[in-house]
Amino acid sequence: MTKHLNKDTTICMSLAARPSNFGTRFHNYLYDAMDLDYLYKAFTTRDLKAAIGGVRALGIRGCAISMPFKEECIPMLDELDASAKAINSVNTIVNNDGYLKAYNTDYIAIATLLKQYQVPTDFTFALRGSGGMAKAVACALKDAGFNKGVIVAKNEKTGPELASLYGFEWRKEMGNLNADLLINATPIGMANGEDANKLSFTEQQIEQAQVIFEVVALPAETPLLTYAKSKNKAVITGAEVFAIQAVEQFVLYTGVRPDDELFQQAAHYARAGA
Amino acid sequence: MTKHLNKDTTICMSLAARPSNFGTRFHNYLYDAMDLDYLYKAFTTRDLKAAIGGVRALGIRGCAISMPFKEECIPMLDELDASAKAINSVNTIVNNDGYLKAYNTDYIAIATLLKQYQVPTDFTFALRGSGGMAKAVACALKDAGFNKGVIVAKNEKTGPELASLYGFEWRKEMGNLNADLLINATPIGMANGEDANKLSFTEQQIEQAQVIFEVVALPAETPLLTYAKSKNKAVITGAEVFAIQAVEQFVLYTGVRPDDELFQQAAHYARAGA
Repeated sequence: MTKHLNKDTTICMSLAARPSNFGTRFHNYLYDAMDLDYLYKAFTTRDLKAAIGGVRALGIRGCAISMPFKEECIPMLDELDASAKAINSVNTIVNNDGYLKAYNTDYIAIATLLKQYQVPTDFTFALRGSGGMAKAVACALKDAGFNKGVIVAKNEKTGPELASLYGFEWRKEMGNLNADLLINATPIGMANGEDANKLSFTEQQIEQAQVIFEVVALPAETPLLTYAKSKNKAVITGAEVFAIQAVEQFVLYTGVRPDDELFQQAAHYARAGA
Repeated sequence: MTKHLNKDTTICMSLAARPSNFGTRFHNYLYDAMDLDYLYKAFTTRDLKAAIGGVRALGIRGCAISMPFKEECIPMLDELDASAKAINSVNTIVNNDGYLKAYNTDYIAIATLLKQYQVPTDFTFALRGSGGMAKAVACALKDAGFNKGVIVAKNEKTGPELASLYGFEWRKEMGNLNADLLINATPIGMANGEDANKLSFTEQQIEQAQVIFEVVALPAETPLLTYAKSKNKAVITGAEVFAIQAVEQFVLYTGVRPDDELFQQAAHYARAGA
């Protein structure tokens, strides 16, 4: 049933090379539940510039940006929020009457969680990964005041680049490195991935650490989280990162915030058909 | 409820300076009734070129074009169907994988009705008006084989231009002109217009004519139609023009044709909230 739709319904959308159904289901569920005259639809494109031009010209209120467009879109926008500027990566565009301002709600989510869990900034950390999410984590750590850390990444180009950008060390492998805060921003432990059943740190490293931060959101409990919990370690989860970034996106588009119970319902509904 | 929406739902839309709700309600009603995974939304824009670029880049399947964009859009398209080329005016764009082909379903509707009612092509005609709809009518008359006619239009630029384009005569006023076929393509008789209660031809001219063609669609029965029917004249109505052009647009977008009963339900529903 789309009969309620009218000429004034506000449209939000996403752009990704390979769209999933998650966003479409998640946002539309909340619009319905909160009685907002909004509609959300995932799109793909072979012409990013024309697609962003269309967002602007058609008055599309919000546009989520996914792989591989997160950097490519930047020259087409009017303003970068600090969250996007910090890591040169956009995942959210807000259109105010033709003026496009971009955000990175992944960065916002990670910064929020570091603060919320009151992770001491004099902790040493080891961050695995040097992709988009690792960039967001490294920048959030730096901005929060962490300065004793190691980026652990196999990639010999992006690894050292990310480390030197924020004045951290770089290592290719964890080896026998220990740290107070361990963060996984690689696909290790990700559902359906080739390393789905692997731990991203050794058992001994987990036991030696104080806080474990898993950025992988699916499954909700990775092997890393399972083991860390069994050792009574404090954990921050990818599900929390995802929840906060999605809600922040929703708030940027609509100006209203769903409560946590409703958010959980929407996320559950969205996952069921994603 | 927009929960059925998914990443693969096909989107159609319209572009107008001042959108109404008619198209959004009409098309979505039919999508629901015919169980099509489509969605329709009216838009406006201040940047037609970027908006059409967005239609192409986002894979929007169809885009209706209304005032004042019907000519302006032409250079942005890949191909004009004969219906649009004939009158240099587009009201329908179909997007086939990034290739934009344009149609004019008003022209198609008028040509269809002249044929359907078997109006003899040796009839003399008087056509009032020289705007977009009058252009479509004049071209359809010419293409059908009519050649004894007068364009009656107050506008001293567009009136003679339209007449000379198709080899018809031009007059500024009807005066005491009579013709077998009388066609009104002016706002006279239009609901809420300043001439809503006026006849577009004199009673005597109507009595002398054989067929009366009213292009005004709202109200369904104008004073011209009421009077013509009272004199048992054959009439072709604006409601018929509108119905055919809307269905042709729907068929171009979806490839399927609603039956007449369903069409009437959708039009009734759409009018109620337009």
